[in-house]
Amino acid sequence: MSPKPSNMPHTSKPVGSDPALAELERLRASIDNIDAALIHMLAERFRCTQEVGKLKARAHLPPADPSRETRQIERLRQLARDAHLDPDFAEKFLAFVIREVIRHHEAIAADARRASEG
Amino acid sequence: MSPKPSNMPHTSKPVGSDPALAELERLRASIDNIDAALIHMLAERFRCTQEVGKLKARAHLPPADPSRETRQIERLRQLARDAHLDPDFAEKFLAFVIREVIRHHEAIAADARRASEG
Repeated sequence: MSPKPSNMPHTSKPVGSDPALAELERLRASIDNIDAALIHMLAERFRCTQEVGKLKARAHLPPADPSRETRQIERLRQLARDAHLDPDFAEKFLAFVIREVIRHHEAIAADARRASEG
Repeated sequence: MSPKPSNMPHTSKPVGSDPALAELERLRASIDNIDAALIHMLAERFRCTQEVGKLKARAHLPPADPSRETRQIERLRQLARDAHLDPDFAEKFLAFVIREVIRHHEAIAADARRASEG
């Protein structure tokens, strides 16, 4: 049997026969399931925040609430620590989601203004 | 009974007696539950991608896989549409998470290099 050529790239093995690639497929299937769960949880979160936006517009409450945000950040950082997730990432994630929520709330407030002026 | 002064701000009512604020608290309790679920799903996702990172380093597979990413984006956009979530947001969310994953993989690869040189 001839020795494996040393210049053969490590990634040229056929997919089906490589245990590393089989393991990669297994992990990716889990990631895909988790991503579907994340998308559905995010959809449900935005349903709640859309309700919050309408409620705040109706009750003339201010769109932003810095003390609520501070409590949310501290709580999520602690949940992240407990789940061995980087708390800085959890905080960045919350900021990313809240930016989108504020964008939605501003759109709702603009619609409400247009409706009251129209 | 004296009329309510017209210059009284809308937000000055006491919290307990205002139905709008009670409804706000109810919605925030749901948001807090969803955030806890999101943090735990993200923690589990990073457990999977840490395994992927170690596997790729061990099997000398390239850290990035553009064709996998393209498939993930299209799938998540469709899941988002089905869940009435903005598909552009879903795509931005995936990009946000993948940036963090690549940061982790680079750290794992650097550790592996240090270990093999040390």
